[in-house]
Amino acid sequence: MVSTRNKFKSIAIYSSLKDSKVLHLANQIIEVLSNLGIECVFPNSSQITSSMKKRGLSDKNVVKKCDLVIAIGGDGTLLTSARNFGVFGVPILGINLGNLGFLTDIQPSNMTADLTRIIKGEFIKDERIFLEARIGKDKNKYKALNEVVLHSGSIAQLIEYDLYINDEFVYRQRADGLIVSTSTGSTAYSLSGNGPIISPELNALILLPMFPHSLNARTLVTSDHNEIRLKVSDKSKAYLSMDSHMNIKVSSKNDVYINKADEGLTLIHPTDHSFFSSCRNKLGWSLGVPNKKS
Amino acid sequence: MVSTRNKFKSIAIYSSLKDSKVLHLANQIIEVLSNLGIECVFPNSSQITSSMKKRGLSDKNVVKKCDLVIAIGGDGTLLTSARNFGVFGVPILGINLGNLGFLTDIQPSNMTADLTRIIKGEFIKDERIFLEARIGKDKNKYKALNEVVLHSGSIAQLIEYDLYINDEFVYRQRADGLIVSTSTGSTAYSLSGNGPIISPELNALILLPMFPHSLNARTLVTSDHNEIRLKVSDKSKAYLSMDSHMNIKVSSKNDVYINKADEGLTLIHPTDHSFFSSCRNKLGWSLGVPNKKS
Amino acid sequence: MVSTRNKFKSIAIYSSLKDSKVLHLANQIIEVLSNLGIECVFPNSSQITSSMKKRGLSDKNVVKKCDLVIAIGGDGTLLTSARNFGVFGVPILGINLGNLGFLTDIQPSNMTADLTRIIKGEFIKDERIFLEARIGKDKNKYKALNEVVLHSGSIAQLIEYDLYINDEFVYRQRADGLIVSTSTGSTAYSLSGNGPIISPELNALILLPMFPHSLNARTLVTSDHNEIRLKVSDKSKAYLSMDSHMNIKVSSKNDVYINKADEGLTLIHPTDHSFFSSCRNKLGWSLGVPNKKS
Amino acid sequence: MVSTRNKFKSIAIYSSLKDSKVLHLANQIIEVLSNLGIECVFPNSSQITSSMKKRGLSDKNVVKKCDLVIAIGGDGTLLTSARNFGVFGVPILGINLGNLGFLTDIQPSNMTADLTRIIKGEFIKDERIFLEARIGKDKNKYKALNEVVLHSGSIAQLIEYDLYINDEFVYRQRADGLIVSTSTGSTAYSLSGNGPIISPELNALILLPMFPHSLNARTLVTSDHNEIRLKVSDKSKAYLSMDSHMNIKVSSKNDVYINKADEGLTLIHPTDHSFFSSCRNKLGWSLGVPNKKS
Repeated sequence: MVSTRNKFKSIAIYSSLKDSKVLHLANQIIEVLSNLGIECVFPNSSQITSSMKKRGLSDKNVVKKCDLVIAIGGDGTLLTSARNFGVFGVPILGINLGNLGFLTDIQPSNMTADLTRIIKGEFIKDERIFLEARIGKDKNKYKALNEVVLHSGSIAQLIEYDLYINDEFVYRQRADGLIVSTSTGSTAYSLSGNGPIISPELNALILLPMFPHSLNARTLVTSDHNEIRLKVSDKSKAYLSMDSHMNIKVSSKNDVYINKADEGLTLIHPTDHSFFSSCRNKLGWSLGVPNKKS
Repeated sequence: MVSTRNKFKSIAIYSSLKDSKVLHLANQIIEVLSNLGIECVFPNSSQITSSMKKRGLSDKNVVKKCDLVIAIGGDGTLLTSARNFGVFGVPILGINLGNLGFLTDIQPSNMTADLTRIIKGEFIKDERIFLEARIGKDKNKYKALNEVVLHSGSIAQLIEYDLYINDEFVYRQRADGLIVSTSTGSTAYSLSGNGPIISPELNALILLPMFPHSLNARTLVTSDHNEIRLKVSDKSKAYLSMDSHMNIKVSSKNDVYINKADEGLTLIHPTDHSFFSSCRNKLGWSLGVPNKKS
Repeated sequence: MVSTRNKFKSIAIYSSLKDSKVLHLANQIIEVLSNLGIECVFPNSSQITSSMKKRGLSDKNVVKKCDLVIAIGGDGTLLTSARNFGVFGVPILGINLGNLGFLTDIQPSNMTADLTRIIKGEFIKDERIFLEARIGKDKNKYKALNEVVLHSGSIAQLIEYDLYINDEFVYRQRADGLIVSTSTGSTAYSLSGNGPIISPELNALILLPMFPHSLNARTLVTSDHNEIRLKVSDKSKAYLSMDSHMNIKVSSKNDVYINKADEGLTLIHPTDHSFFSSCRNKLGWSLGVPNKKS
Repeated sequence: MVSTRNKFKSIAIYSSLKDSKVLHLANQIIEVLSNLGIECVFPNSSQITSSMKKRGLSDKNVVKKCDLVIAIGGDGTLLTSARNFGVFGVPILGINLGNLGFLTDIQPSNMTADLTRIIKGEFIKDERIFLEARIGKDKNKYKALNEVVLHSGSIAQLIEYDLYINDEFVYRQRADGLIVSTSTGSTAYSLSGNGPIISPELNALILLPMFPHSLNARTLVTSDHNEIRLKVSDKSKAYLSMDSHMNIKVSSKNDVYINKADEGLTLIHPTDHSFFSSCRNKLGWSLGVPNKKS
């Protein structure tokens, strides 16, 4: 019996990790969902599917059938589920195995209560963009939630590239690489490179040079409506990575185009979710004693 | 005889500098404008007015009467003319005495040609925002084009403050101060503090802590639609500056509110103006050999 | 009866704070020292002297008579006692009121045990340098343990200065100021400006520009045997601060000379003191699980 | 006839580049040296040897026979000649093909005059250290003039490692890698990662984390007399590079040891050589108008 009051009718549970904690959590979730009259499935690409064989479903059918994917793990697991399901329109809810993440904000200890409320409709929808990279006239389009990185493939190896924004030349640069990050990615790799934190509602791209050769290189923040084009110089051997995933070879013959994808990602959060609260938790920002507005 | 084909009918010439170069340029401008049938005036607050007494006009009447202010000087002069005239709706055109500025982009050597084309209607309108700061219930509203800075008034003197964005607590911090910068200001003081460069079309605010006491403080970029609120702690002696101008005392009793002002600034540029070209010129970014799109 | 086995015979207790916790600690220390047969005095400049009037002594006599000063407070209190007593050759032992400091590393909870061991001769001597600044031919020499700062006196106000090292011109720079820090000061103000941490045994100076106007300004680290000379430009209104203390006016007519002082500071630490352990405690560096050397 | 007044008797000319400019310069040098009665040889490892076959000599014999190596190229060529000859005690003189380098400071246009003066004994000796890295009990010792880098082998791939200095645990860190740089290397890769510039006379090591995962990681500068030990964690796949050269695999089973090598490098400079002048040239530091000491 599926309660008509449930906001989600078919839910997939996904993890990219093989871990007893994951399995334990998955069983808990099955129980919670059963009590709410919701049956759940396991995508074949998930690491927990083997233990749940009878509930297995192809990723393609998960996309067709499910109206929510629950991702168990860290931000890495969420990135994979975003690529596998989120990009096709299925909302994602992240349950964090350890500490709170920026994208996964249900803690195991609160899981039953939080999940029940979310199923009943008490949640926040958080829309994020994907970047889409393509190389020359190649039809492949590579998606990234956090960042696309053009790089030399090696530490301390320079590449040279020209940066264009909306076909306007910006600069020629020699560096280990360039990070093109979304606002979502501003708390990921870009942050390790001393990039600014961008609040999620700002439709921005961060262009952060990695170990740039010249001292006047700076991080540039621009609108995510702009097209980023990168032209690698003749002698540079370069690669393209998406969310620390894949390593596509790039030559001087074919420019790299990076745009906001048509498809977005819908994250589902408990109603008490807050980006700045995640920042305080994850980055150790001082809590102080928040004063009431006078 | 005023040509009906002129886009501007009454123009004020302003400089905050007293300099023979300024006077020379002002005379050149008068000549160009005369030839186009446009009479020009000198705001009383301008440093060149004394030599041009018969053309003097109160600032109030400049705002009423003129449809363009030509500011001669550097970015500092443009900031003053923005505060005096721009904020009341008069577009500003900047002529740079020395090197190109970010806001003033007509060079003396191109002045006659550039100015003539602009008068004839060949120009780009570039809309910028002002920040507006107010303290507690005080009715005064302080405008800034580049940045509002909350600071301790002294080098190496900490203040403690709580940051709120749209009434949500973000963090408590101890630092020499906090820079709240517009996208326009991203190439000014914030850049000296290693802040990111923001392209002008992005409606962003930079929140950059100055000499923060804790190592995990980072620069935050957020939408300029948000309200920034700063609550200074009991023991902190703090001041508020706007565009390195004024030093208003702030106590723990009255929060500081920073918002986008209703009024904006219209900058007038030659048609070949480009923000990234200014970056290359001013910041020494590599020109490379801009390749044609293949 | 003074035990001949005590390494210190006459000890002064100093604090720059007026606080019941300080008084409580001072009484504890008196007790510990009495039991060891050591009488202690209170320098007149100390904030705790009023409650201890009969034990009061002029600072001059403290220097003559005492072979140890125990400073109760934070790093600020230790800086003051270093200036008042340490610079005249009296070793300083710091007891931290709150958390561990970089210079004060006895915690109140360990005080009796740590202090007893130290009196008995179980301690580490840690020699630090003072900087000595003088202006033109003025005979005054200003001491600093952490840093000398040349600055504009205001936030977002540029000064222009030439830097010379051992009479060799290094650069001309426009900035809010320049921090000249010792290795000791590398964990103080310089660290807030993103300067490197220097381990105490390296005889180094950090030259860190504050909000420099040009993008290619970088932090310079040089030997503390070198003489730093700063020449302020004609139009710059500049000030000199020592350990966030004093504000001496500097004009273009008189160069500022900064050298290692002849006098040093002797800090006394418990035998388990470690600079890197302080870093982990104070800066939140990851503890990991220190592996034994294999 | 060899003039007894010449300070160098047998000189090798080396370049790692194959370039008509190099050949042209080599011929010029041969002429200058012939006129001074000095015969010169070409190391077999040099790219210019094929055109100079009759003057070819094995690298081993160059080390035995020659008392100077002239390296033609950029800082990269000088690094190779430092590894091939300098480490065995042969002084190196660098002639820069293009702009001045930090290590190569004779310009082609001044070559004849500068070289003649140097041969006659007018030169500065500049002693630099090499780092020496070894892995576990492996007998191989890898030399580096600029830096040793421990890294993950890939962009945006974390490794975890413990840092020990002189067997004392400093921190556990997750990062793309760690740069261990000499003072010489402070103007090379470390500078691209925003490291401080260290003047050559300071016997320092820079420990600069690359894209560290935690926000409180900072650059550490310590004495080059210290031993650096790096212990990679179990799961980390790591590599060691020396001067962007080689990629030695490192596992958790064998610690990496980095020490100052017994062997040093002697650089030969014209008498007007100055490190700070190189900084101004290479880094674009403002020249100002160097004032005379008053």
